[in-house]
Amino acid sequence: MEKLLYGVAYYDEYMPYERLDTDIQMMKDAGINMVRIAESTWSTHEPQNGVFDFTSVNRVLDAMHEAGIHVIVGTPTYAVPTWMVKEHPDVLAETKKGPGKYGARQIMDITSPVYLFYAERIIRKLMEQVSGHPAVIGYQIDNETKHYDTSGPNVQLQFVKYLKEKFGTTDALNKEFGLAYWSNKVNSWEDMPSVVGTINGSLGAEFSAFQRRLVDRFLSWQVDIVKEYRKPEHFITQNFDFEWRGYSFGVQPNVNHFTASEPFDVTGVDIYHPTQNDLTGIEISFGGDVARSTKGKNYLVLETEAQAFSNWTPYPNQLRLQAFSHVASGANMVAYWHWHSIHNSFETYWKGLLSHDLQPNPVYNEAKTIGADFNRLSPKLVNLKKQNKVAILVSNESLTGLQWFPFNQKTELNYNDIVRLIYDELYKANIECDIVHPGTESFDDYSLLIAPCLYVASDELLDRINSFVEKGGHALFTFKSGFTNEHIQVRTTMQPGRIAETCGVNYQMFAEPKNVKLADHSYNVEVNENEVHTWMELLIPTTAETLARYDHPAWGEYAAVTGNSYGKGYATYVGCIVSRELLAGILQQALERAGLCGTEQHYAFPLIIKSAVNEAGKQIKFLFNYSWNTQSIQSPYEKSIELQSGAIIEKDQELSIEPWSFFILEIQ
Amino acid sequence: MEKLLYGVAYYDEYMPYERLDTDIQMMKDAGINMVRIAESTWSTHEPQNGVFDFTSVNRVLDAMHEAGIHVIVGTPTYAVPTWMVKEHPDVLAETKKGPGKYGARQIMDITSPVYLFYAERIIRKLMEQVSGHPAVIGYQIDNETKHYDTSGPNVQLQFVKYLKEKFGTTDALNKEFGLAYWSNKVNSWEDMPSVVGTINGSLGAEFSAFQRRLVDRFLSWQVDIVKEYRKPEHFITQNFDFEWRGYSFGVQPNVNHFTASEPFDVTGVDIYHPTQNDLTGIEISFGGDVARSTKGKNYLVLETEAQAFSNWTPYPNQLRLQAFSHVASGANMVAYWHWHSIHNSFETYWKGLLSHDLQPNPVYNEAKTIGADFNRLSPKLVNLKKQNKVAILVSNESLTGLQWFPFNQKTELNYNDIVRLIYDELYKANIECDIVHPGTESFDDYSLLIAPCLYVASDELLDRINSFVEKGGHALFTFKSGFTNEHIQVRTTMQPGRIAETCGVNYQMFAEPKNVKLADHSYNVEVNENEVHTWMELLIPTTAETLARYDHPAWGEYAAVTGNSYGKGYATYVGCIVSRELLAGILQQALERAGLCGTEQHYAFPLIIKSAVNEAGKQIKFLFNYSWNTQSIQSPYEKSIELQSGAIIEKDQELSIEPWSFFILEIQ
Amino acid sequence: MEKLLYGVAYYDEYMPYERLDTDIQMMKDAGINMVRIAESTWSTHEPQNGVFDFTSVNRVLDAMHEAGIHVIVGTPTYAVPTWMVKEHPDVLAETKKGPGKYGARQIMDITSPVYLFYAERIIRKLMEQVSGHPAVIGYQIDNETKHYDTSGPNVQLQFVKYLKEKFGTTDALNKEFGLAYWSNKVNSWEDMPSVVGTINGSLGAEFSAFQRRLVDRFLSWQVDIVKEYRKPEHFITQNFDFEWRGYSFGVQPNVNHFTASEPFDVTGVDIYHPTQNDLTGIEISFGGDVARSTKGKNYLVLETEAQAFSNWTPYPNQLRLQAFSHVASGANMVAYWHWHSIHNSFETYWKGLLSHDLQPNPVYNEAKTIGADFNRLSPKLVNLKKQNKVAILVSNESLTGLQWFPFNQKTELNYNDIVRLIYDELYKANIECDIVHPGTESFDDYSLLIAPCLYVASDELLDRINSFVEKGGHALFTFKSGFTNEHIQVRTTMQPGRIAETCGVNYQMFAEPKNVKLADHSYNVEVNENEVHTWMELLIPTTAETLARYDHPAWGEYAAVTGNSYGKGYATYVGCIVSRELLAGILQQALERAGLCGTEQHYAFPLIIKSAVNEAGKQIKFLFNYSWNTQSIQSPYEKSIELQSGAIIEKDQELSIEPWSFFILEIQ
Repeated sequence: MEKLLYGVAYYDEYMPYERLDTDIQMMKDAGINMVRIAESTWSTHEPQNGVFDFTSVNRVLDAMHEAGIHVIVGTPTYAVPTWMVKEHPDVLAETKKGPGKYGARQIMDITSPVYLFYAERIIRKLMEQVSGHPAVIGYQIDNETKHYDTSGPNVQLQFVKYLKEKFGTTDALNKEFGLAYWSNKVNSWEDMPSVVGTINGSLGAEFSAFQRRLVDRFLSWQVDIVKEYRKPEHFITQNFDFEWRGYSFGVQPNVNHFTASEPFDVTGVDIYHPTQNDLTGIEISFGGDVARSTKGKNYLVLETEAQAFSNWTPYPNQLRLQAFSHVASGANMVAYWHWHSIHNSFETYWKGLLSHDLQPNPVYNEAKTIGADFNRLSPKLVNLKKQNKVAILVSNESLTGLQWFPFNQKTELNYNDIVRLIYDELYKANIECDIVHPGTESFDDYSLLIAPCLYVASDELLDRINSFVEKGGHALFTFKSGFTNEHIQVRTTMQPGRIAETCGVNYQMFAEPKNVKLADHSYNVEVNENEVHTWMELLIPTTAETLARYDHPAWGEYAAVTGNSYGKGYATYVGCIVSRELLAGILQQALERAGLCGTEQHYAFPLIIKSAVNEAGKQIKFLFNYSWNTQSIQSPYEKSIELQSGAIIEKDQELSIEPWSFFILEIQ
Repeated sequence: MEKLLYGVAYYDEYMPYERLDTDIQMMKDAGINMVRIAESTWSTHEPQNGVFDFTSVNRVLDAMHEAGIHVIVGTPTYAVPTWMVKEHPDVLAETKKGPGKYGARQIMDITSPVYLFYAERIIRKLMEQVSGHPAVIGYQIDNETKHYDTSGPNVQLQFVKYLKEKFGTTDALNKEFGLAYWSNKVNSWEDMPSVVGTINGSLGAEFSAFQRRLVDRFLSWQVDIVKEYRKPEHFITQNFDFEWRGYSFGVQPNVNHFTASEPFDVTGVDIYHPTQNDLTGIEISFGGDVARSTKGKNYLVLETEAQAFSNWTPYPNQLRLQAFSHVASGANMVAYWHWHSIHNSFETYWKGLLSHDLQPNPVYNEAKTIGADFNRLSPKLVNLKKQNKVAILVSNESLTGLQWFPFNQKTELNYNDIVRLIYDELYKANIECDIVHPGTESFDDYSLLIAPCLYVASDELLDRINSFVEKGGHALFTFKSGFTNEHIQVRTTMQPGRIAETCGVNYQMFAEPKNVKLADHSYNVEVNENEVHTWMELLIPTTAETLARYDHPAWGEYAAVTGNSYGKGYATYVGCIVSRELLAGILQQALERAGLCGTEQHYAFPLIIKSAVNEAGKQIKFLFNYSWNTQSIQSPYEKSIELQSGAIIEKDQELSIEPWSFFILEIQ
Repeated sequence: MEKLLYGVAYYDEYMPYERLDTDIQMMKDAGINMVRIAESTWSTHEPQNGVFDFTSVNRVLDAMHEAGIHVIVGTPTYAVPTWMVKEHPDVLAETKKGPGKYGARQIMDITSPVYLFYAERIIRKLMEQVSGHPAVIGYQIDNETKHYDTSGPNVQLQFVKYLKEKFGTTDALNKEFGLAYWSNKVNSWEDMPSVVGTINGSLGAEFSAFQRRLVDRFLSWQVDIVKEYRKPEHFITQNFDFEWRGYSFGVQPNVNHFTASEPFDVTGVDIYHPTQNDLTGIEISFGGDVARSTKGKNYLVLETEAQAFSNWTPYPNQLRLQAFSHVASGANMVAYWHWHSIHNSFETYWKGLLSHDLQPNPVYNEAKTIGADFNRLSPKLVNLKKQNKVAILVSNESLTGLQWFPFNQKTELNYNDIVRLIYDELYKANIECDIVHPGTESFDDYSLLIAPCLYVASDELLDRINSFVEKGGHALFTFKSGFTNEHIQVRTTMQPGRIAETCGVNYQMFAEPKNVKLADHSYNVEVNENEVHTWMELLIPTTAETLARYDHPAWGEYAAVTGNSYGKGYATYVGCIVSRELLAGILQQALERAGLCGTEQHYAFPLIIKSAVNEAGKQIKFLFNYSWNTQSIQSPYEKSIELQSGAIIEKDQELSIEPWSFFILEIQ
């Protein structure tokens, strides 16, 4: 990117009355320099089968161009028009719940040739319209694409062919997936039952992986079409989203963001999060780290909240804090969903920068300051680079594996809870990290690799990590890691399987802890913070040192946390789910051993420090205050310039960061 | 009515052995002067297609007539016989959940011509039998009629024609309902998808309104048939029920009681409520106020509980208290569902006056005192009139609107919670009220009009209220009022839209309050009662005075409750959901300003005062004690007669009302 | 049985690599003398329609025989192969939820002739293979057989014929089931609707009883086939399971264990239970008492947990404690599900004796001590006999009845909660009991018969109990007993119906208690333990003495618990659900009156005493400590030998039982 982009999704099609000129003037007043259009409005652009109407697209392109506002055009394929479903009801995805019903977006079978035919036609028609227009800077392919659990007979047939290709014989499949259990053997490919009802975790998880591949294939297919039209200077992106818990929580279960992002020039994401007293910056940071890590470079925030999504109206200053938090993680764009609040239908309470009254309001007024600063500081803050020494290894396969085999029958904790438990404590300790994945070729750039619940992993992946440690890396594994191979077949060696030697520990038994604490540990926690819950492995060190053991009458002799020197490196193994405070202690110990604790780690949430290097090669330090309390810090940096105010900051100078505010220091 | 009716539903068809003479003697002993029959027993009266058997009807009519007990005959159409469904499975309503299954009552498609054919035939056959019988005083049409969410293809087709009639073109529909959103546009009527899957709140709510019209039409159709047979002295009624939360809670979502009651001579309702320590009289009062308000006159309680419905066995005296509570709200009939407890099937624990042993019991014995007093006091208590100065405006459309757009994603609070929050506090403060609705032509008879969550309202309705205030009326609006037009399209002006000027206030933002209280208010509440929850609007007074603002670090400058003089009247606007105690304070302030607080308002729940004027033009005052504690009151009335005892009560005489007891004063 | 059997389920078919010899050696080391095979692996033994492969069966039989380990062969019919469902999708049971999906076990229609054809063929093929093999000692028919709610049109048709056979005419059916209610009458058998949607409790419960008969018929049919092959010394058993609440909780709703066990030589069951701090022995005891009572003799525990089922890993000593707890209840076999933990599919965390590493581990090592002691003590502990004086009457019909008519609309308490409330308090008071059922011909062997919630009971059954009391027996009935006849028709006499005279009490009313306690009682409870909840009947003694009345302002005059001398016996009636502590007091009073309290009742849980007589006619006393605290007891027995240690124990000698340990005393 040449500059920071500050944008909004813009729906001329939804406007209750003619607003285009007024809206553009208000955008310009706010420093908005980008709008995203067209991705949601197929039924407007193709009102009847084969009848096309790009009036709204063209007029918006023209008007934006005139105003100097860039446009990203989305292919409108994630929400299908009524006529298509009426003509071809089977374009709707059949799922575990049965046939689909028209109404929502994202309800179609992304493998349906009927759908693909119409999708290709509208994409080509749209590209013909827009690709030559000077307002256009790039394209978004579809939107928040997932597989929508498509699993009808046609998908099942493709899946059987996929299994046949992968395993060759039903005997091999039966063996690897353990289908003899409960008489599930398939002894002829023709006998393969629909996977929808399966109780076999290996089979079910393979289907989930297959479904994620459908997403890869669908996106790649669209990219190839768009590439036929785009100009060299146009980028192509997608808008990925995350596991949704009322906000962007964790790793997306239904898409492998690392493989799915491959065909794109730049990764785009949407990030929604709580605000008000619950604004921590964690979701902004986590989503940003995932996005940045997919391609190892800057990314776009194609959607984030303006005013409330539902009722999360930001306090004064929070919109600013949020925008620069995105930039601090490496975003080159912050765009709001959406410009104006929608007056009908469904997302009426996901409010835009403008309320339904379409007039200036406190949030819009705050946006004006952001737009101005983005414009002014763009040369300093665009294309920021990270040099993180810590990486977290996330795995779609392990996520799925733990859906099939949760910690116990009642818990609501899943894979992402553990990922976030670790991520959150790193964040709060001012440790920035990258996100790596099973396909990452080498971990050697990192000092510390953290593998939360790496439940599903091939021998090859585990050996890659073992080798990293052997060569001098530090690794931290949690419970459940190494338990199964890539087909969710439990390893037949003592656990933790192929990392047992690296970790110098093994175990045969595990339990659900009740009234269990850690003993003989060095973590600085209060008595009531010393809690082991939900899962514990009864660890027996072989070569490892015991960093903590269990405080329990029956299991007091077993280790709970261990550390082991292996080759030139060191591996920490955490055998149980612990409180946030204990985990912070465990992480701190590992970070210190890896030499990763410095002055910045003397500060902690709500004072958050983010580091980057700008295009001029200067160190940029963001100092955020996510609280109502003014935060103080003695600048640990050489002389620097605070970019908002232009003030010179000397080393050791006392800085006071106002509530929900921040400093941006450029070290000279 | 010529006298108070005291009745029961009577099912000769369900009796385990021959009981008719015994039952009638026990009824006479208890003063029962009315029975309702036949509405549930189609399969007995038409055991096979076209084979009729009215033996039980005829013998009950004859025996009741001989005993001087009146009979209401119900058309038996709400529970269809097995043969019909076996012959024509498609008489069952298809709903969101799929095709229906035989078993329960109220499972048919009330638009099915097959059903209508059979329904008409059984009605005519029954009418031929009974309309000339001297025991008959009236008819009940069907029972607790609703639309049962009928939404199969035939209903969908009718709905499309209805939309076509209403909007003319799909363009108009698209525009008004915002169907461009998520590509939902319908560009040809043929493309209209089933509304069952829609995510468009405007479309979904319109379908709900359409379904409520089906109820109107079905009832009106039956009334027309019955009118062909009834004698001039026979009345026609229905048995409406309320939103059900294990008891009769609030406005019925699936029927518009105001339009549905139009074809009837008199409105009938059923009211079920907790008893024991939870007997408050509120449900009796609320249901009664709705029923009375539908036609502005006395109503019938066609069903209420005798002994337990489920386990709500009344304490001694409660049955009496309940019966006279109904009368105090304007009921001319109190009838129990049902005479005898049912020995099989489903509602075995909805016990009648008699337990399954069919012998006298404490509740039956208490009923005897009620029957005797009804008979003796009928000339004083029949046809009581009300002259209420307060009205609550309820709206089926707003109820539906808030189902589509609830306060937030997690709350269980809905429209009726707010209606009841207000109703309950008025009740507890001894303020009686009428219930009005969007179709009410004028509010001018009232001093204070309260509009809870009038979320969906046409300009015309809001102008009618504005005009009421301008002419001197007092209005109290809550949050969410005026937000959308009649098609759930959010208004494009500043909120609260078309009442902003009347209220002298506007707002652009709202939030979900956490740890928010009211500040700068004059309500007399304890610290722990000062609570704002679930919803808050950030109000900015224009011409209004601030009656309370928020106590919150970010939003402390915004108003929470405002009051505004407008024309000759005054409008209070409540911008947030508050505790019961705060709401009581807000209401009291509004009532005082409207001049509605007198001596009776010095007393409060559990001492409840109800007022009426009897046929002789005398003021009747009911003084109820809904508690275990004796309540004392100095009679604020001129000399009066206590009708139960005949005692003379002087003004200022100290009265002690025993637990769960009451006085009825006729002021001389 | 000739000896105690110590066994495992063994799945050669699931093994990840060749293990047979190693496994057998490890089994022998642990004293395992029995394996169960084949019941889960149809798809291995018949990989294609009509193609048979018993390789794994044969090799396991040969190897086990060589090792001197007995084999139980299961018919593999509870989990159907893929080819069958692909060829004949309608073998899957259609249920209330619709058509079935392939995947889990126990999904087929056990009345499907297609299924029965294939089941018969695989059974015969298997029997031909194994019945002559010397390793075989017996057969298990199917596994945890239930009816899987099969209720498709073919089952419905059979049900209608069953009703026709039972009731003769639809008039009789209508009358007995009260089908006139809500117009449900069936006036021609052809009109009978699917029972799936019925709201008539009598009809619905009759269908449940019919479904339980399908299980009886299916099992009996398989037994007859197997009998054609088995040798005289071979036994035939089943593996029954219990109401499942994450563990084996109570009476199985879907099978009548008493009728279903008739065709078998010996009853087998599986029992799963919490361990760790939640190990009480109650589920072991309850399941054992049911199993033993089905045929009045010893039984087999065909499955119980080894290591964790889910995360219930036993503490050290608990596996031993559990094994001997089974023996103390009369088990002649304790077999684990299963030998090795399963590496794929679904039950990966229901761990076997071996973890997935297939190596020795602490639990396996503890099993070795059990195997050794079983072998050594078998002559003393096999075929133990019980002589219990207390019986609990359980009734599938009452269980179903209370599903249709629960205590109230919100409670989660059901029939089994009440059964267990009573059973648990007896257990904790060291009172052993038998389980009897409506088909038990005489109760005369017992001193005290306890009937919890005998809601559904014929006159004949109640008269049998009345007669038992008249002749001198003690009976204790709880609330709800006697309420309906065998068709869930409420009795038309005063409650408790046909036991009212025996109990000297009647009632007409009942309620849901709130803030109700017992008054005027003699039970030794703390104030906060004095609680009546969920259900109370307002009892009026006729000839009974009041043992407790209610403490409540309205209902203080009614009795809560009564006792009545009737003939030579005594009947206690408990009219309400009380706290565990109150119930313990009520039971103690009844036990003392029946002369059933002795020295052993001076001790209570966690010190549990079990008594039996061995084949030598010697009294065996098991003294279990289910806790972390050492328990002390002065031996109340004549001189005895502790069988584990061989120590001589004198009368009054002080014994200290270590945590989770036990003594076995043989009184000399």
